[in-house]
Amino acid sequence: MLQTTDDTFDGGYFDEEKSAEVVNSRIGEGADPRLKEVISILTKHLHNAVKEIEPTHEEWFAAIRFLTETGHMCTDWRQEYILLSDVLGVTMLVDAINHRRPSGATPNTILGPFYIEGAPHYPNGANICLDHKGTPTLVRGRIMDVDGNPVEGARIDVWQTNDDGFYDVQQKGEQPEYNLRGVFASEADGRYWFQTVKPRFYPIPDDGPVGKLLGDLHRHPNRAAHMHFIVTADGYDEIITHIFTPDCPYLKEDTVFGVKKDLVADFQPIDDPDMAAEFGMPNPFVMVDWDFVLARKAKANG
Amino acid sequence: MLQTTDDTFDGGYFDEEKSAEVVNSRIGEGADPRLKEVISILTKHLHNAVKEIEPTHEEWFAAIRFLTETGHMCTDWRQEYILLSDVLGVTMLVDAINHRRPSGATPNTILGPFYIEGAPHYPNGANICLDHKGTPTLVRGRIMDVDGNPVEGARIDVWQTNDDGFYDVQQKGEQPEYNLRGVFASEADGRYWFQTVKPRFYPIPDDGPVGKLLGDLHRHPNRAAHMHFIVTADGYDEIITHIFTPDCPYLKEDTVFGVKKDLVADFQPIDDPDMAAEFGMPNPFVMVDWDFVLARKAKANG
Repeated sequence: MLQTTDDTFDGGYFDEEKSAEVVNSRIGEGADPRLKEVISILTKHLHNAVKEIEPTHEEWFAAIRFLTETGHMCTDWRQEYILLSDVLGVTMLVDAINHRRPSGATPNTILGPFYIEGAPHYPNGANICLDHKGTPTLVRGRIMDVDGNPVEGARIDVWQTNDDGFYDVQQKGEQPEYNLRGVFASEADGRYWFQTVKPRFYPIPDDGPVGKLLGDLHRHPNRAAHMHFIVTADGYDEIITHIFTPDCPYLKEDTVFGVKKDLVADFQPIDDPDMAAEFGMPNPFVMVDWDFVLARKAKANG
Repeated sequence: MLQTTDDTFDGGYFDEEKSAEVVNSRIGEGADPRLKEVISILTKHLHNAVKEIEPTHEEWFAAIRFLTETGHMCTDWRQEYILLSDVLGVTMLVDAINHRRPSGATPNTILGPFYIEGAPHYPNGANICLDHKGTPTLVRGRIMDVDGNPVEGARIDVWQTNDDGFYDVQQKGEQPEYNLRGVFASEADGRYWFQTVKPRFYPIPDDGPVGKLLGDLHRHPNRAAHMHFIVTADGYDEIITHIFTPDCPYLKEDTVFGVKKDLVADFQPIDDPDMAAEFGMPNPFVMVDWDFVLARKAKANG
């Protein structure tokens, strides 16, 4: 697509005012239409940002250095660019765009980096806390559809930090394997229940460029205390979500913006020896009543 | 800055519509005001881009992978993020923002990665082409201020590719050291002149993620043929610029958008034995008449 025949055509030359149009006009006819769309939109907004910022050459180079160092921090076991996406709210935004659910269905939030496959399957009522530290907590509720009908045999995959604020995979050898992880199935009436401990807030890894950026922005690196869930059942949208403790000091300033109002649970103190005995809990304990509401999968076309 | 006292305050929770405001509200009081401004503007435009693109989770992860691989490609001698900035027109945009010159002054363009300090100083008329390949070219002109007065003793630092499209530093051992590099000084009447060869277009390094992106966008990796100049004189703004050949097939589609209309020179074929003899050129040859117009440095305040 050389444009050498018409000398009056200026589209190929750089133009400060129309800079993004000039760049986007170069994309060739044969490019994938979605790639063309994505890059054109990114270029437009990137140029708008540069025009609003008016960076000096030194600021531009500081950005180049930051992006380079963020890349260099990434290894097979550390994804600094996902952290950057997380702390800038982009991960949550992408999640929100992709999970606009019918009213009443449990909202999604981010998966996070600590999920692993293969956690033990337990019967309802089992205790997933294998290191016996923390506040004993009973989590119970129902898996339902948006019309309130129970969903039997839903798979409930749960994982969380221990009372020190670490996942088992962060403390291999120190915590029991699969500590605070387990898979449960809902009963015929949709009910599930298990024993655990109250989760604790914890910092995201902040020894890299993203942690430095957070520090420079006078932002802390802490995630609000939460339990993770993946709930799946045939014919329903998978839910990847958290429930949050209501009294975490970081509830309203989760560093990755994972908190949604509808995901804050009531962690209710219980002092009731009969109830404790019924569920095999020590007395007193904390109880969370939490229902998951599944949306039906959209039907395939045709 | 914990916000736990007012239960009706929702600012801390993620909100798809106000996503960028939520993220930017987290920046602490003590942050550097310019950093706060820059990150807030970037976040706003980044969220606008994500909202317009509506990426799938897979597309988001492809972007994470691209950014990571671009970082991994960067070494002490290869800056893939600068290439990315170049091919997206950001480098030129930043340059344009920082070099809005008075009308008539020679415009800037990008420095590029092949400048090195320490090129030989030559008297006017010297030949910087040490490998004797290509079309003999005489470059001559004047260094002037915006009022047309000659500037004596201006330093003119020139570098370019050889006739094969490579800089000396890309072909160490193959090309003579400092091939097609030299530093000249303007005479009392502002004049400078030197011998060289016509420059050739060449591709930017395209064996990394940025080259792959260009390929996917059906864009070629070629820069329009040019000579680089840095012109400095006491009391004047430094000019970092190119002059371009008018007949390069990539003139209107320089892959880094470095071409400005005012930087395209006339490379005039000359068949004149007397003139050739006067300048020590073979006959026929090519002549470029090119004046550089310097803007006075802005006075410091106070």
